[in-house]
Amino acid sequence: MANIKYEIQQSFGVISEGAKGWKKELNLISWNNRDPKYDLRDWDEQHEKMGKGLTMSKDELIKLRDLLNSMEL
Amino acid sequence: MANIKYEIQQSFGVISEGAKGWKKELNLISWNNRDPKYDLRDWDEQHEKMGKGLTMSKDELIKLRDLLNSMEL
Repeated sequence: MANIKYEIQQSFGVISEGAKGWKKELNLISWNNRDPKYDLRDWDEQHEKMGKGLTMSKDELIKLRDLLNSMEL
Repeated sequence: MANIKYEIQQSFGVISEGAKGWKKELNLISWNNRDPKYDLRDWDEQHEKMGKGLTMSKDELIKLRDLLNSMEL
């Protein structure tokens, strides 16, 4: 991961907390100085180490929201 | 990926479609015969090849839904 630059431009919230303070978060992140994307991912407390996750566009996030709202959870 | 067994138990919908028919989908998947988890991931048309993604519990999905509903998208 050493060569990846990232800037967390906005934090929307925490989805869950795991072991050792790791948190699954939804953020708006610019990777390698590119346009920011919505990003769902595990982070350590200092936002230095990251786990697996995925990036989404705004359209994908809207679709995901509508999908979740249509489900019985 | 050869040693990973998975069974898609329920499909909730498609978040987006990418190149060559790949789709980002929300499914309920049992990995290696374990209890099923909610899974957000890219799949090819045949559900044979998968891309990166993440698995979530029901609680995480509910938290994510509430978070998305609180955002201006």
